[in-house]
Amino acid sequence: MITIEWKNNAVKIIDQTKLPGKFEYLYIKDIKTLWHAIKVLKVRGAPALGAAAALGVFLAIKNSKAENFPAFKAELDKIISYIGSSRPTAKNLFWGLERIRKTVLNNKTKPVPTLKKLIFEEAHKIIREDMVSCRNIGRFGAKLVKKGDTILTVCNAGMLATIDYGTALGVIYRCQEEKKKIKVYACETRPLLQGARLTTWELSRKGIDVTLICDNMAATLMQQGKIDMVIAGADRIAANGDAANKIGTYSLAVLSRHHKIPFYIAAPESTFDLSIKSGKDIPIEERDAKEIKELFFKEAMALPEVKVYNPAFDVTPHNLITAIISDKGIIKPPYQLNIKKVLK
Amino acid sequence: MITIEWKNNAVKIIDQTKLPGKFEYLYIKDIKTLWHAIKVLKVRGAPALGAAAALGVFLAIKNSKAENFPAFKAELDKIISYIGSSRPTAKNLFWGLERIRKTVLNNKTKPVPTLKKLIFEEAHKIIREDMVSCRNIGRFGAKLVKKGDTILTVCNAGMLATIDYGTALGVIYRCQEEKKKIKVYACETRPLLQGARLTTWELSRKGIDVTLICDNMAATLMQQGKIDMVIAGADRIAANGDAANKIGTYSLAVLSRHHKIPFYIAAPESTFDLSIKSGKDIPIEERDAKEIKELFFKEAMALPEVKVYNPAFDVTPHNLITAIISDKGIIKPPYQLNIKKVLK
Repeated sequence: MITIEWKNNAVKIIDQTKLPGKFEYLYIKDIKTLWHAIKVLKVRGAPALGAAAALGVFLAIKNSKAENFPAFKAELDKIISYIGSSRPTAKNLFWGLERIRKTVLNNKTKPVPTLKKLIFEEAHKIIREDMVSCRNIGRFGAKLVKKGDTILTVCNAGMLATIDYGTALGVIYRCQEEKKKIKVYACETRPLLQGARLTTWELSRKGIDVTLICDNMAATLMQQGKIDMVIAGADRIAANGDAANKIGTYSLAVLSRHHKIPFYIAAPESTFDLSIKSGKDIPIEERDAKEIKELFFKEAMALPEVKVYNPAFDVTPHNLITAIISDKGIIKPPYQLNIKKVLK
Repeated sequence: MITIEWKNNAVKIIDQTKLPGKFEYLYIKDIKTLWHAIKVLKVRGAPALGAAAALGVFLAIKNSKAENFPAFKAELDKIISYIGSSRPTAKNLFWGLERIRKTVLNNKTKPVPTLKKLIFEEAHKIIREDMVSCRNIGRFGAKLVKKGDTILTVCNAGMLATIDYGTALGVIYRCQEEKKKIKVYACETRPLLQGARLTTWELSRKGIDVTLICDNMAATLMQQGKIDMVIAGADRIAANGDAANKIGTYSLAVLSRHHKIPFYIAAPESTFDLSIKSGKDIPIEERDAKEIKELFFKEAMALPEVKVYNPAFDVTPHNLITAIISDKGIIKPPYQLNIKKVLK
């Protein structure tokens, strides 16, 4: 199962808003539809967004009528800034866009048709690299897991969040391959329920022992001694190791510390943003109140006049993170030093 | 607005499963319907359950044909054990039943019609006492709140959980009467969403500044310095101060400790169970998986084969509780000593 690819002259994605009820592919043929698909999370997950961004640029520019580099470059800049406006927090989105921009800039003497071809190739390079990245994360991460361990995870950092294997869930798939007989608890992850809808779906498809809980039950599981470790993905990691991830991740990190449980972040190099010193500089996306009050419900769960606060992400300070499982190896504190050391 | 009362020869309750969409009264005329109403949380909240239990006994026994005390007592025992089987955690339910039992035992020489009348009167005494209790909790609790404070609360410990004023929310209503210009954040409280459906409904009806969040956002609010204190209700408090309350409460207590925020439990004397040494002995109700996967949703949010863990309550150890706001006064640690001192 591939989450995102180029097929039939379109960006082919699984419509994740339909899961687990319907498993349906979408063929996206214009950039506005892709922007909207990113905005409403039909395609989501930091690494998958890198690929979506790159394929999106190709989708938007493949029929460009630009006849010279400056005209082509002007179009490209407009497209990149448009795609970038869809989700502010995920580093990989901007990283994907930046790779495409650099590819074009490094080839400015080439004719426009060649530039289009290079964009297409770079997008596919991103996709292939992600598949390798996730397997590396899985391989490094599995070393931290003992036979029979129970892992708690949040949101979906799995196949659906990447091209096909996952970051946090990549570790779990690798443990399964190594026959470690692990158990997983998945936080449902309000408001968009990616844990309930996506994580339990993909883990149970793969025959992994998964139990769904509400987010507010995680502390109780830890209190009962049922959790051996927490593994979460990330949307952006600052130079000091502070990690932005789906709302609720920070809460799990604090709870892990209280219960003396290791707390791991799993993410590829493309999620690191070394231009950002600490988590304070990571922009946090706030989303529509309807996601909390109405979206999945038969009827509204709170009255229209009730105010809502809906931050989509939170930032876990580096001092609560036991280690970061990257595609280049396990990164331990001090992060300021070791992130650079492991990644380069 | 009265949450529960005897009217038209029936137990009159607000159907809380219909809120906030519909504000509807139910007139319950038989004990099986009342048992079911308690089970599915049409009536809920520790103090309200005390009243529901007492009125329930009267409802079930008012047409008894027993002609002597032993026959009447046998019927009574059956009814009490039946009502008690609806919800295991809430102390007030058993406390209400026990008060009725004692009333009958203390009057065993009286004729059956008199016993029925005494049960009716005792149920109304419970109701009147609860109204006074909640106002006392409000008055004591408000002393802990400064002007302009922001309070985080969980589930619904308000009018709807009591007869008409609330325990945790009683403190908030009292602050409003004292014009303290407080702000409230309400955790939605998955899976049954009492925070979203009930707390925001009753607070906004009363003109209190309330903002709804998902449970997994509480840590972020604390991290941002937005929360001055947490006030939660309780369903049972052990002799050492350990407090069972709606799932998610323990999580907030741990998060409060990490962020150095005071964490208060508000509950009347009837919620204390001094026969229980510590939280370890409090039975925790586990509920149907459907509440997490299906209940309020347009379609199932996880596949049928996915396992679910759905504990309805958790236990907050006494060492995480800054103080207990009781109707007899503020109880501070050491609880083992001070609970007895303040309550007697």
